[in-house]
Amino acid sequence: MSWLGCELPLIQAPMAGSQTSRLAIAVCQAGAIGSLPAAMLSPDRLRAELQALRAATDKPFNLNFFCHRPPPPNAEREAQWLSRLGPYYAEHGIAAASIPHGPGRAPFSAELAELIAEFKPPVLSFHFGLPDPLLLARVKQWGAMVLSTATTVEEARWLEEHGADAVIAQGLEAGGHRGHFLSPDLSRQQGLFALLPQVVAAVKVPVIAAGGIADAAGVRAALALGASAAQVGSAYLLCDECETSAIHRAALQSPAAGHTTLTHLFTGRPARGIVNRLMRELGPMSEPVPEFPLATSAIAPLRAAAEARGKGDFSPLWAGQNLSGCRPVPAGELTRSLAP
Amino acid sequence: MSWLGCELPLIQAPMAGSQTSRLAIAVCQAGAIGSLPAAMLSPDRLRAELQALRAATDKPFNLNFFCHRPPPPNAEREAQWLSRLGPYYAEHGIAAASIPHGPGRAPFSAELAELIAEFKPPVLSFHFGLPDPLLLARVKQWGAMVLSTATTVEEARWLEEHGADAVIAQGLEAGGHRGHFLSPDLSRQQGLFALLPQVVAAVKVPVIAAGGIADAAGVRAALALGASAAQVGSAYLLCDECETSAIHRAALQSPAAGHTTLTHLFTGRPARGIVNRLMRELGPMSEPVPEFPLATSAIAPLRAAAEARGKGDFSPLWAGQNLSGCRPVPAGELTRSLAP
Repeated sequence: MSWLGCELPLIQAPMAGSQTSRLAIAVCQAGAIGSLPAAMLSPDRLRAELQALRAATDKPFNLNFFCHRPPPPNAEREAQWLSRLGPYYAEHGIAAASIPHGPGRAPFSAELAELIAEFKPPVLSFHFGLPDPLLLARVKQWGAMVLSTATTVEEARWLEEHGADAVIAQGLEAGGHRGHFLSPDLSRQQGLFALLPQVVAAVKVPVIAAGGIADAAGVRAALALGASAAQVGSAYLLCDECETSAIHRAALQSPAAGHTTLTHLFTGRPARGIVNRLMRELGPMSEPVPEFPLATSAIAPLRAAAEARGKGDFSPLWAGQNLSGCRPVPAGELTRSLAP
Repeated sequence: MSWLGCELPLIQAPMAGSQTSRLAIAVCQAGAIGSLPAAMLSPDRLRAELQALRAATDKPFNLNFFCHRPPPPNAEREAQWLSRLGPYYAEHGIAAASIPHGPGRAPFSAELAELIAEFKPPVLSFHFGLPDPLLLARVKQWGAMVLSTATTVEEARWLEEHGADAVIAQGLEAGGHRGHFLSPDLSRQQGLFALLPQVVAAVKVPVIAAGGIADAAGVRAALALGASAAQVGSAYLLCDECETSAIHRAALQSPAAGHTTLTHLFTGRPARGIVNRLMRELGPMSEPVPEFPLATSAIAPLRAAAEARGKGDFSPLWAGQNLSGCRPVPAGELTRSLAP
C-alpha cells in the first residue's frame, strides 16, 4: 500500500481531451490512482463521469482541474489571430461567421466545488497554481488530498506554503500543458533530473515526479531521486480505454512522434505536442495568440475540417518527449507493468 | 571495477576554461575517470598537461576535444556583431583596434593526434560529432576508447555507426556547450529522463548519462534508466582543484545560480550558463552572433574589463540546471560521495 492509498506509488496523469472516467477506472482497478480531467467537461458531463467512477470502483481516484484566472477578452488580439489564421480558414472553406468564440476551458469555481462535493473525490489535483483559499478550504473539508504542479523550485515552495498536500514536479519532458504559474519565462523550466531532487530538497510534503517517465525503470529512477510517487501520462495514450483520436494514435506511432515541442498555438499557453503543420508553418510560439484559454476556439473549426479529411494538421497532438512506453494494451496491464 | 577500467562508473565531465589536469588527477586518484579538456589549450600547454597527468597517475583518464568544422570567416556578420557590442566597448573604454580576432577554440586535427599519440590517452571524448575516419582510426591504433556526445536518438545511432565505443547521452539539463551536431533545432533537445532510456534502447554500445546529475542518488537514477555510467560536471566547479574563477564561484553560490539558460553569445554555439547581464540585455540567443567558435574573441576584452572590476557581466558562467551538488571540497571527496 503506497502513501497515496493505493497499491502502487503511481498516478495516471489527467489528459483532458484524450480520456474519460473509463481510463481512470481501469487504472484504479489495477492498483494506481486513476485521474479524471475535468477542465473540458460541462457540469452535467462531469457529474455523469463522477457517477460512473463511483459506481465502478471504491478505490481512490484523482479529479483534476485547471485554476487559471480567465483573462479579459482582447478583441484586437483575437482579430489579429483570426487574420493570421485567415489563409487556413480560406483553404478549408470556413466562413468567418462560423468561427466560435469563448474560453474553451473553465477554471475551478465555487459552483464546481458544490457539484463535486457529494462525490468527495479523495484526491484533487490542480494545474496553474491553486484555487483561492476559501475554495481550497472547501475541498479540504471532505478530506481531499490536494496536489498541484510545480515546474520550478519557487513554485514548489509556493504550493507548499499555500496548502498543497503534495507537489507534482513536472519536468520539461512532460506532454500537454506546462503547469508554470509564477513566471512565464520558459527558460526557467527544467529537465526532471535537475528539477526533481531540488524540489525534494526544498519542500517537506511528498513529491510526485512527472515528465518522461514511461516504464518501471523510469518509476524506479524517480524514486531513487527522492520522489514519493510517479505520474505517467503519454504511455497511456494508446491504451484501449483511452479516447485518444485515431489521428492522434497514428501520430504517436509514426516517426513524427520523435519530435515534440512546446507550443501555445492551440490554447494560448505552452503545451508539449508532436510537431505538425500549424506549428511548422506559424512557428510553435508565434505571436499574436490570444491569452489562455481564449486561443482554443479559433483553431476548433480548422481542426474539425482537417480531421474530417484524416489530417492532424491543426490538432493538438499532446505528447511527452518519451513515447517509448506507449502500447495498445488494456490500461490495467500497462499500470501493472509500471510497478517499480 | 567498472567497465571504464576504474573503480566507479563515473566520468568527471571535461570543462574547458574551468579546469586543468589538476582536477583530472584528483578524480582519477579517487577511482573515477578524470577528464582533461583540450579545446582551449595550445599544443605546448596540452603536452605539459599530459605530462603532468602521466607523472601523477597511471589510472585511466579521458582527453576531450571539440571536433567542429571551423567556419569560413564572415566579415559582415562579425562587423554586425562588433557594432551590436559597440555600446559595451564604449562603456569599458575598449578601442576597436584592440579587439582580437581568431577562432578561440581549435578542433581535433592530425597535428594534435600526433602530439597526444606518445601519451596514449586511454579514453578520448569528442563534442560535436567525431573526427574524420582516418583520424579516428589513428587514435584507435593505441587502443583508445572513443566517446562522443549525443543529444538525440538520431545522434546516438550516428555515433555508434561511425565508430564511437560508447555514447554520452547529454540531457538538456547539462551545463556548458550542447553537443548536438546533426540538427541545430534546439526543440529536438530532450531532458535526460526522456533521452537516456531511448538512447539505451537505440544503441548496443554502453551509454553514459550526462546532465543534471549531482549526487549519488542521481548516479543511481541514471543506472536505473540503463546508463552504464554517469558523467558529472557542474558539481565539481567549486572543488579545490578546479580553476573556476572567483567570479564564477561567487555566481555558483548566489541566488542567480537558480536560473541558467542556453546562450550562443559567448562562442557562437548554444551553451548553458547562469543568466548574466549580457544575456539579459541582448537576449541569450540574439542575432547576429558569428558562427562557433568565431564569436569568442569579441567578448574577450569585455569579459576581461568587467572581471577586473569584479563583475561577471560578460563572463560565460557555465553551469547546469542542478547545482545542488556543488561543494567547496577536495575533488577526491566529491568523487567518492558520488559512488552509487
